[in-house]
Amino acid sequence: MSEQIQPEQTEKTDQNEAPASFEDVYAVSTELVRTVEAALEDNDDAALREVLKPLRPADMADLVVVLGRENRNRLAVVLGNDLAIDTLVDLEGSVLADLLAVMSPHAVARAIPELDTDEAVHLLEEMNDARREQVLAQVPAPDRAAVLEGLSFPEDSAGRLMQRDLIAVPAYWSVGQVIDYCRDTDELPDEFYEIFVIDPRHRPIGQVALNRLMRTRRPVLLREIMEAEATTIPVDMDQEEVAFLFQQYRLTSAPVVDAVGRLVGVITFDDAAAVLEEEAEEDLMRLSGVSSETDLLDTALRTTRTRASWLLLNLGTAILASLVIAMFEATIEQIVALAILMPIVASMGGNAGTQTLTVAVRALATRELTAANSMRIVGKEIVVGALNGLLFALLVGLVAAWWFDAPTLGIVIAVAMVINMVVAGLAGTLIPLGLNRAGIDPAVAATVFLTAVTDVVGFFVFLALAALFLL
Amino acid sequence: MSEQIQPEQTEKTDQNEAPASFEDVYAVSTELVRTVEAALEDNDDAALREVLKPLRPADMADLVVVLGRENRNRLAVVLGNDLAIDTLVDLEGSVLADLLAVMSPHAVARAIPELDTDEAVHLLEEMNDARREQVLAQVPAPDRAAVLEGLSFPEDSAGRLMQRDLIAVPAYWSVGQVIDYCRDTDELPDEFYEIFVIDPRHRPIGQVALNRLMRTRRPVLLREIMEAEATTIPVDMDQEEVAFLFQQYRLTSAPVVDAVGRLVGVITFDDAAAVLEEEAEEDLMRLSGVSSETDLLDTALRTTRTRASWLLLNLGTAILASLVIAMFEATIEQIVALAILMPIVASMGGNAGTQTLTVAVRALATRELTAANSMRIVGKEIVVGALNGLLFALLVGLVAAWWFDAPTLGIVIAVAMVINMVVAGLAGTLIPLGLNRAGIDPAVAATVFLTAVTDVVGFFVFLALAALFLL
Repeated sequence: MSEQIQPEQTEKTDQNEAPASFEDVYAVSTELVRTVEAALEDNDDAALREVLKPLRPADMADLVVVLGRENRNRLAVVLGNDLAIDTLVDLEGSVLADLLAVMSPHAVARAIPELDTDEAVHLLEEMNDARREQVLAQVPAPDRAAVLEGLSFPEDSAGRLMQRDLIAVPAYWSVGQVIDYCRDTDELPDEFYEIFVIDPRHRPIGQVALNRLMRTRRPVLLREIMEAEATTIPVDMDQEEVAFLFQQYRLTSAPVVDAVGRLVGVITFDDAAAVLEEEAEEDLMRLSGVSSETDLLDTALRTTRTRASWLLLNLGTAILASLVIAMFEATIEQIVALAILMPIVASMGGNAGTQTLTVAVRALATRELTAANSMRIVGKEIVVGALNGLLFALLVGLVAAWWFDAPTLGIVIAVAMVINMVVAGLAGTLIPLGLNRAGIDPAVAATVFLTAVTDVVGFFVFLALAALFLL
Repeated sequence: MSEQIQPEQTEKTDQNEAPASFEDVYAVSTELVRTVEAALEDNDDAALREVLKPLRPADMADLVVVLGRENRNRLAVVLGNDLAIDTLVDLEGSVLADLLAVMSPHAVARAIPELDTDEAVHLLEEMNDARREQVLAQVPAPDRAAVLEGLSFPEDSAGRLMQRDLIAVPAYWSVGQVIDYCRDTDELPDEFYEIFVIDPRHRPIGQVALNRLMRTRRPVLLREIMEAEATTIPVDMDQEEVAFLFQQYRLTSAPVVDAVGRLVGVITFDDAAAVLEEEAEEDLMRLSGVSSETDLLDTALRTTRTRASWLLLNLGTAILASLVIAMFEATIEQIVALAILMPIVASMGGNAGTQTLTVAVRALATRELTAANSMRIVGKEIVVGALNGLLFALLVGLVAAWWFDAPTLGIVIAVAMVINMVVAGLAGTLIPLGLNRAGIDPAVAATVFLTAVTDVVGFFVFLALAALFLL
């Protein structure tokens, strides 16, 4: 390492200067986007290809996303079938569908054999049935069979995530045999991190990480160095559970087995990371009433439609709250201060409830909240609601009493506040726990239920107490 | 693979029966928790150790989390310094702090040399200065230096994430030399996925994945097979950017370099995945006004305190909204229907705005929303707001007109609705974009700003229009 510097090495290092910041590493700058937009505008195909040439597929995918729909399709037409298949693999939803529609079925079919099974399945999922058949008809038979098998597994199952290419060898092989096998075989997976050890019935009985192979001498048998307690994934396991296991046990790759325990594929850490990301995003979106993940890039019309259903649900709860207010029409007529103050009670309850709800939804996803500790957590959240309720009741009570010069009004709003915030803590935990026990994603519609509860309780308690004690 | 079944293999496979479901793989069942709680209750240390014996460190960590604070500390006392350091590494926040407080500094110090640098740093971060010094004083000098260097990097930087153990060799080494080196060296990293190739000044000029080494014949030089365009991480890069690069380029591991480009450490995919998870969780929590990630497991008192600041902020906006309503006291006195209907306008605006806000915050995090396309996205969200505004204006207008038998009231609420929902689309994009440009996390406080806008505009427009046209 302390030898003379060789000419070609200095050259190399000059090219590879140390990056100083994120912008030196990540290629998709605003400047790049502007340059591409200008080239598309001018129909300057040569300039366009020149700018795009150094981009890695993943960066190309990001560029395609940031360009508008119109420029995106124009770009796809210019590049045509030269649009690298690796770029498509990194895309999803409406953007992927748009681009697949521009490419010829033949070009897609030609690329399929180069992809991992899970990647090919990802592309084919985004096509309608007619186009999928068109493409599949042109894929070589063995690859077609692999892809069709992939598509036969339920959506969001381990079977869809896995790739079929893997290295499986018997336990009596030596390290030297495995290395020779890898050197002599052309058809190895593109990437692999572990060698799987199987029994004569093709069931996985252990695995050996490559770094373990690297540090072991040739004559040693796999049986002696394999990890026998490795985590095995059933092919129909939900992808959310698969991702959880990868995170939990820091897995690099894991064998997937069929119903009788035979090794049928392998899932790698990058597949699992993508699912984790997707699930976290889904929780976030669902809590805010957004259903589709590619929402931002959809057309305005499609976005409007997907968001309307949630807004309609919310309208229902808002009208419910209005009906509660209407019950106290006569009271409000006499004391307008109630109309002025009532949104405070509802809003504070809603916010306290959302805090609890979000923490509970997240904790359910990470399995920090389970049947084993749910009652303790519900109890704690009630206490938190009561404590913050008391704190803010005091504050709001004083403000109201001073503002309207009415001490009793201050007491009424304070009591309503405490009650609503305890209810918020209760609803914020019980709603997601209930949805979860019913087998429903706790993030779905939880916020609507919660707001319905905190609005109705907030308005009712405040106005009813006012009707009782202020009239 | 089609040979006679050997006795020891059948034995092996019988132990490793194929898992049929998630519960067969993940050990922390409600039943296990109950058994542990019972053993702790009965002070039955033997039974406790028996139950805990088969648990993997990561499962032990989950168990510790699900047990309450009291049982957790009791468990730590029973196990004492036998509590595996690998379990601690998987914990964080208040739970980790609790357990570290129970262990002797000596036990922690003894475990440090066995850990990766980033893991040791993770543990020491959770201690107060006095205790950290106590522990460090008992750590062997070279390991202490490594840990202190790790701690010297800014929090949330690549330097904190990286481990220093790695394999770096010159480009003129052959595959055979690398394999021999790995076989002959005792002090290799626990896990590694790539070999880094460095120049004489210790700057990375390429890397070779282990599977590439495995399939290449011994005499081939690294120079010929190395990936020269590998992504290099500056040591002071923000961890969020590091995690993004791992996801973007599907990295397994990446070299970390200092200011002059020398290789100083390596970050692996599991570190990056943990950061991604953490950041997605942070966005979710911040949008709901929850600051701490370990919130669910904190004591009620600490939780109350961390959540109160957000509620206080929200109280401010709620009072602001009340002040707007108070401006129209006289109008409401004459038409109580306004008090009944006004929460609908504010609530629908708030919900539509939250949808937009959430999508925008997420898109900023994934770099789907950038300076290059922000104006187009803002435009689109305004259109979505207008379209859904018109739809729900029609609906609410009809409901209001029929309910109170007052067509003009229906028109007034419809117009207010359209205006507030367009404003919601505008605020839902401009607020996170503005916070982002100002260098503030767009999720922080965005919801408060948004609700302030949609409440104030909603109440004001509705009541002002009513005052103009209904009196």
